[in-house]
Amino acid sequence: MKIKRIDHIAIVVEDIDQALGFWRDALGLDLSHVEDVPDQQSIVAFLPTGESEVELVKPTTDSSGVARFLEKRGPGIHHICFEVEDIEAALSSLRQDNIRLINETPMIGTGGKKIAFIHPESTHGVLVELYELTGQEPEMRLARARRLADRVLTGGQTMANSALEFLRGLGSNGR
Amino acid sequence: MKIKRIDHIAIVVEDIDQALGFWRDALGLDLSHVEDVPDQQSIVAFLPTGESEVELVKPTTDSSGVARFLEKRGPGIHHICFEVEDIEAALSSLRQDNIRLINETPMIGTGGKKIAFIHPESTHGVLVELYELTGQEPEMRLARARRLADRVLTGGQTMANSALEFLRGLGSNGR
Repeated sequence: MKIKRIDHIAIVVEDIDQALGFWRDALGLDLSHVEDVPDQQSIVAFLPTGESEVELVKPTTDSSGVARFLEKRGPGIHHICFEVEDIEAALSSLRQDNIRLINETPMIGTGGKKIAFIHPESTHGVLVELYELTGQEPEMRLARARRLADRVLTGGQTMANSALEFLRGLGSNGR
Repeated sequence: MKIKRIDHIAIVVEDIDQALGFWRDALGLDLSHVEDVPDQQSIVAFLPTGESEVELVKPTTDSSGVARFLEKRGPGIHHICFEVEDIEAALSSLRQDNIRLINETPMIGTGGKKIAFIHPESTHGVLVELYELTGQEPEMRLARARRLADRVLTGGQTMANSALEFLRGLGSNGR
């Protein structure tokens, strides 16, 4: 089983705009995009840094895992996600080691990516997500990087009108 | 203010060996080394992955921040650390944005590295560490990489001799 890198850290927040006030404006991370993810009953802001991302996650229903986490613990780090080479092989290997899995088989996420969660009971208190890159993903990431480059070029650091237009445009264009 | 990458994720655990049972043995991360860090009243296991590290932290006293965290919340993610270009500039910029800092000036850590923590109150629930690479650090990391390479070779896994020679050679040449 081969872990390639940290893909992202997910942070549950009560309000995306307020959270961006720290993570983007004060800390200085770039905002790649904000996305409504109905599958996860969440709105997610993606902030790439190095080869990883910080994801700010705001629940949009009361019943999801992130919503219950927020209610019980307040805002904070929800999970850490690692990229693996082969997620089926990874899950099979973890099962052999008697690791408690939340997903026995991979879920199919946005863009066809495969993800699965490991239960915190087996990880010493950390919700761990595994993620396998699929064929469509590199192209999606490239498109995001291009949009980000455009935004940085036209909008500068502050949320200029051009950047705002850009963000609004994302919704109508899909992804 | 420029964030370069996620340097590490620190996970507080009750027992290093038991935690390695998941993070190294089941998940498959490499263990670089285990270090007693008296400054932080902790024993720390370092598990590099990609350009970042997972750090398993076991408190060695009852009075440290990690000890209190463990007592109150149980094992889990304690903080996330980002590498910055210039930590003094970063702290100054955060102060101007009225961000609550735990360390108003950088602490000097192992190998002379500079670190400072941002209070979770200002980050939406996440303890954030900032870290600036110093002159001694690349050499220390190289030495660790060499030790890891030696261990992997003697441990029976395959690593080409040429790669090992390369890693060994790095140290004698300095950087």
